[in-house]
Amino acid sequence: MHKEFHRLISLDKAIELALGDAPRPRVRIVNLESALGRVLAENVIAEIDVPHFDRAAMDGYAVRSEDCIIASESSPVRLRIVGSVSAGSIPDASAGPGEAVEVSTGSAMPEGADAVVMVEYADAADGYVMIRRPVHPYENVQRRGADLSLGERVLSAGTHLGPREIGMLAALGMSRVKIRSLRVGVASTGNEIQSPDEHLMPCKIYDVNTYTISSALSQIGAEPVVYGVFPDSYDALSESIATALIDCDMMILSGSTSAGRGDMLYRVVSDLGELVFHGINLKPGKPTLFGRVGGKHVIGLPGYPTSALTVFWQLVSPLVHRSLGLRSHHFSLKATLARPFRSESRRQMLPVIIHRGKAYPFDRGSGAVTTLGASDGIIDVPADREYLHAGEVFDVHPLSGDDLDLIISGESCPVLEAALDRMNLRFRYLVRGSMRALTDLQDGLADIACITATQELPEDLRVVASYRRELGLISRNPDLLLNSDGAAFAAWGRDSGVGCIMDSMLPGVRRSVEVRTHTGAALAVLQGKADLALGAREAAGMWGLHFRYLADDGISIVARMDDTRDIIKDIADALKERSQDAAVST
Amino acid sequence: MHKEFHRLISLDKAIELALGDAPRPRVRIVNLESALGRVLAENVIAEIDVPHFDRAAMDGYAVRSEDCIIASESSPVRLRIVGSVSAGSIPDASAGPGEAVEVSTGSAMPEGADAVVMVEYADAADGYVMIRRPVHPYENVQRRGADLSLGERVLSAGTHLGPREIGMLAALGMSRVKIRSLRVGVASTGNEIQSPDEHLMPCKIYDVNTYTISSALSQIGAEPVVYGVFPDSYDALSESIATALIDCDMMILSGSTSAGRGDMLYRVVSDLGELVFHGINLKPGKPTLFGRVGGKHVIGLPGYPTSALTVFWQLVSPLVHRSLGLRSHHFSLKATLARPFRSESRRQMLPVIIHRGKAYPFDRGSGAVTTLGASDGIIDVPADREYLHAGEVFDVHPLSGDDLDLIISGESCPVLEAALDRMNLRFRYLVRGSMRALTDLQDGLADIACITATQELPEDLRVVASYRRELGLISRNPDLLLNSDGAAFAAWGRDSGVGCIMDSMLPGVRRSVEVRTHTGAALAVLQGKADLALGAREAAGMWGLHFRYLADDGISIVARMDDTRDIIKDIADALKERSQDAAVST
Repeated sequence: MHKEFHRLISLDKAIELALGDAPRPRVRIVNLESALGRVLAENVIAEIDVPHFDRAAMDGYAVRSEDCIIASESSPVRLRIVGSVSAGSIPDASAGPGEAVEVSTGSAMPEGADAVVMVEYADAADGYVMIRRPVHPYENVQRRGADLSLGERVLSAGTHLGPREIGMLAALGMSRVKIRSLRVGVASTGNEIQSPDEHLMPCKIYDVNTYTISSALSQIGAEPVVYGVFPDSYDALSESIATALIDCDMMILSGSTSAGRGDMLYRVVSDLGELVFHGINLKPGKPTLFGRVGGKHVIGLPGYPTSALTVFWQLVSPLVHRSLGLRSHHFSLKATLARPFRSESRRQMLPVIIHRGKAYPFDRGSGAVTTLGASDGIIDVPADREYLHAGEVFDVHPLSGDDLDLIISGESCPVLEAALDRMNLRFRYLVRGSMRALTDLQDGLADIACITATQELPEDLRVVASYRRELGLISRNPDLLLNSDGAAFAAWGRDSGVGCIMDSMLPGVRRSVEVRTHTGAALAVLQGKADLALGAREAAGMWGLHFRYLADDGISIVARMDDTRDIIKDIADALKERSQDAAVST
Repeated sequence: MHKEFHRLISLDKAIELALGDAPRPRVRIVNLESALGRVLAENVIAEIDVPHFDRAAMDGYAVRSEDCIIASESSPVRLRIVGSVSAGSIPDASAGPGEAVEVSTGSAMPEGADAVVMVEYADAADGYVMIRRPVHPYENVQRRGADLSLGERVLSAGTHLGPREIGMLAALGMSRVKIRSLRVGVASTGNEIQSPDEHLMPCKIYDVNTYTISSALSQIGAEPVVYGVFPDSYDALSESIATALIDCDMMILSGSTSAGRGDMLYRVVSDLGELVFHGINLKPGKPTLFGRVGGKHVIGLPGYPTSALTVFWQLVSPLVHRSLGLRSHHFSLKATLARPFRSESRRQMLPVIIHRGKAYPFDRGSGAVTTLGASDGIIDVPADREYLHAGEVFDVHPLSGDDLDLIISGESCPVLEAALDRMNLRFRYLVRGSMRALTDLQDGLADIACITATQELPEDLRVVASYRRELGLISRNPDLLLNSDGAAFAAWGRDSGVGCIMDSMLPGVRRSVEVRTHTGAALAVLQGKADLALGAREAAGMWGLHFRYLADDGISIVARMDDTRDIIKDIADALKERSQDAAVST
C-alpha cells in the first residue's frame, strides 16, 4: 500500500535529465504589438538602409560645405535660398554653388548639398541667408545606412524582445515578427482541489498552483494553457493528459506526485509513456516527477504551493529557457543571513524575507501560501551544510522585485494599519505577540514593533509613539452586547495582547472560531462564525457592526534606539495626529 | 519663423510638475489569468480561513496524541484503524481513544484526532496499526487559519501582482480581482513617419516610438492604446488628440515637439488646454513638453527614438508609477567607466554598453535606433561634470536584462557569424575597421577582434584562429561576372578590409549603394541596388546568387593575451573545424 520513492536523484541530475532533450518550440507570427516579452525565432537582417536617404539631423540650411569653408562671425557667407524641404517631402529644389535650401530635422537632403548649417548660425532675410560658421562635409547629416545598413544582422534568433528590440523591428518596417512559441499545459490534480471561481466545499482548498505556475510561465516567455483541476482518478487523469498533449508541447501538473496512496500521476505517466525520474533529494521539492508521453515532457510538481514554485524556478524555468533558446539568467543578490539556521542533510531551498540587505529565514511550511507570499527570495543551502551562522553571506535568488518600505511585527492594530495606509507606505505586517515582536525588532527583521504598552523594553529599543484604542464587544445583534450568556466568542490566540485581556475580562466564555486580527474578529461576527468578538472600535466600524466599549487598550510603537530614519519619525507624527483627532472628537 | 525654447527647466523640476497631479487610474475587474503584472486596486482581506479546516500535513494516521505519548520503537502503541479519510472527503470516521484513522496529506482531520503519525513510523496489519513514535498535539497538522486567518490583510492596494501574489488571491478563492487601469494613448507625429505595416515611401522613415513607448508602458503596468501616426497638421492633430482623450486617461506623443518650423504640438496643446512646460535642460530630451487638456496629461516626447525612450524612463515611468500607486523602482547597478568621456555643461543621459562590469559610452546619436538597440544602460551625468575619467564608478540605469556572451569588433565576416550561431552564443557584432577593433579589444569592450590577417599586433594581443575565406564577385546575372564594364558596384567603406581590397583589385569601378557587411553586399545585389558586389562566397550562397572567385582573404581572430577563458578556446576550435571542413570540401 505504501510506496517509497525508489531512487531520489539530485537536483543537478534532474536538471540534466530534463534539459537533455528540451522540447522544440513552434514558430508563430505575431504582430509587433504582441511581441513584448517573446523570443525571436529568426535572425533579423536589415533589408533596408536606415535611414534610406541622407537625412538632415538639425533644423537649418542644407548647403555645399565647400561654399562655407571661409564663413565666420565677422565675415559671414551669403547664400541664396532656393527652396525648402520639409520632413517627409521629396526635395523639389537642389543646392547649386552659392545656394542654400531650408531644411528641418528629418528632411531628405536636397541634391548638391552635403551639410546642414544649424539655424542658430544662420540669418535669413530677403531670400538670402548669412552663414556665420563653417561646416565640414556631412556635418549635421545622418547618412543613408549610417544607422542600420542593408544586410546588417540587427537581432539574433533567441533574443528576448523588450521595448528597444521592438523598436529596432519597427525601424525596419517589420510589423509582424516570428517568435518561438512553447505551449505548456498547466493543471492541478487532487480531489481536495477546487477552482477559485467555485464556492468552497467542506474539506477542500482552492487551486493555487495552476495560477502561480501559469503566471510564472508567462513571465519567462512561454504560453500557458490553463486546464485548472484535473480529476484524481486513474482513467480520467490519463485521458485528460493525453487530450491536453494533443494541443500542448509540454505539460506541467502539480499534486498527486508523492508516493503515497491516491498519488497516481507516476503510474499514469509510466503507463502512457516513460517515467524518467520520480523524487528529487531537495527540500522542498522531493515529490517531483518527470517523464515523457508521446515524446513530450510531462512534469509533476509537488502539490504544496511554495514547493511547486520553488521547483518551477529550479527545474522548469531552465527547461523553458533552453527550449526557447534563451540563456538561463540566474539573477542573484548577496545577503547576510540575519539569524542562524539549522539545515537538514539534503539540499534545501530556504525561503527568506529580504529586508535592508539581510536575509531572514521564513518558513511556515511549504504547505502555506503565506510562505509563498512573504518570501522575497530563496537561499540554496548545499546538502553538506548543517548549521548556517548569522552573518554569513549567501546568494539569494530573488522571487520578487518589490521593495517594502517597512516591516511591522507585533500585535494586530487597525489604528496603525490605517495610519500606514494614509502615509501610502508599502508594508508587511507580521502579526505576532509582543515578546516575539521585540526580538524581530532587535535583530532587524522588523522596523517597528507594535506592542502592548505594559511591556518593559530592552535598552536598545525606544518607544516612538503611544496611543490608546477602545476595545469592546462587537456583534450583529445589539442585545447580545448587554447579555452575552451562552454566546460563542471569536477566540484570540493567547500570545496576543487582546487574548490576554480576553482571558482576564471574559474568563470562561464559550469560544468558536480562532482569530488573529481585529479585522478577523469583526469578520467572524459578520459571517456568523461567532456571535460576539472582542475587538477595536475601528474594526466594528469597517462593516457597521454594533460595538460596546469595555476598556481602553494602550499600544506602544517601538523602534531601535539607533534607527533615526525619517520614516520612523513620520510614523510617530502620523500617530500623534491621530491621538489629537481622537482627543478632539471625544 | 524660428522659435526658441523660452524657458528650459531642469529634469527634476519637470518631474515635480508632472507628478504634482498624477492622473487617477480607473478600477477594472479582471480574471486572475489576466492579472499578471497589474497593480492591485484594493486591500485584500482574507474572507476565509486558509485552510478552512484542520488539515493533515503528512500521509499517515490521525490519532489522539495522548494515546501515543509512550510510543517508542521498542514498545509501539497499538491502535485500531477505524476508517480512512482521503484528501477532499468529509471524514466519516472519528478517532476515539485507542483508535486511529488513516489520512493522506491534505485530508481533513477526523473528529477526536489532534495529530498525525507519519506513515514511516506506523506499521498497519489486520485492522490495527503499531505506532513507533510519540507525537505532540497538532504535530503534522496544519490548523485551520494557520496559513491565512479570517480578516488578515493579505495584500495591500498598490501591490504589483506577480506569480506569488496571484497565488495568494487564488488561495482565497478570488477568481476575479480589482486592478488599477491607466489607459495611455500613444501616437507619433511627423509627416516623415510611416507605420511599419506600409511600404516605405521615399524620404520617409518608419515609426519607432509608438512601439517602444507602448511596450514600455505595458512593462510598467499601464494599458497602452496604440494610435500609430497622427497627421502633422494643426487641425488634424488637434482633433486626433481631443478624440483620443475621450477614451484615454493620458496621452503620449512623440515628434513635433521641438521649437522649429512645422513643430506644432506645443501650439495644439496650448490652444486645447494648458502648456505647463516646453523644453528640458537634458541631453537627450530637450524637446519635451507637458501640458493638460481637459484635465488630462499630454506629454510630448522628442522624436528621436533614444531620446524618447530615455525621457520615458526618466519622466513618464515615475508618473505612471505614481498614478498606479507603485513605488518607482530605481534599479541601478554599479559599473566602471571604461573610457574617458567629455560631457556638456548640461545634465546628460549617456548611453553605455555594459560588458563584464564595465561601461562603454556608446552614442551614434539619439536619432539612431542603433544607439537604442546597443545601449545596455544609461549613466546620469550631472550638469557640473565636464570630464569623466576612465575608472570612475557610476550608477547605471539598466535598459535590458539580457546578458551577452560575447562582443565582437572588426571586419564583417559571415564565416565567423555562422560559427558563433552554431555555438549558440549570444553576441553583438560591432562592424568596424581592423585598427578600431584592436583598440576595442585592448580596452575590454570587445572579447575578440576580427581583423585582416596582415595587421601587426600589439604585444598584449594574440591570434587565436586564422582562416581564409574566398572573396569574389556576386551578381544575379552570370554574364556580368565575366564582363562588368559599366556595371554599378556596391561600395564598401574604406575603413573595411574588403574596401581596401576593392580599391586595389577593382579601381575606378562605378559605385552605387554603400554597404558595411557581406550580407549587405549580397542583399544590395539581390534587391537590384547594385549590379555587382565584392563579397564572401558564403554571402552569395545565402540567396543563391552567382559567384566568381577572385582572391583569398586572410582573416585573424584576435584575443587579449591574458584572456584564457574557455569561450575563446571554443571559438578557436569551432573555426579550426571549419578550416578542416573547407580543406576536405575543396
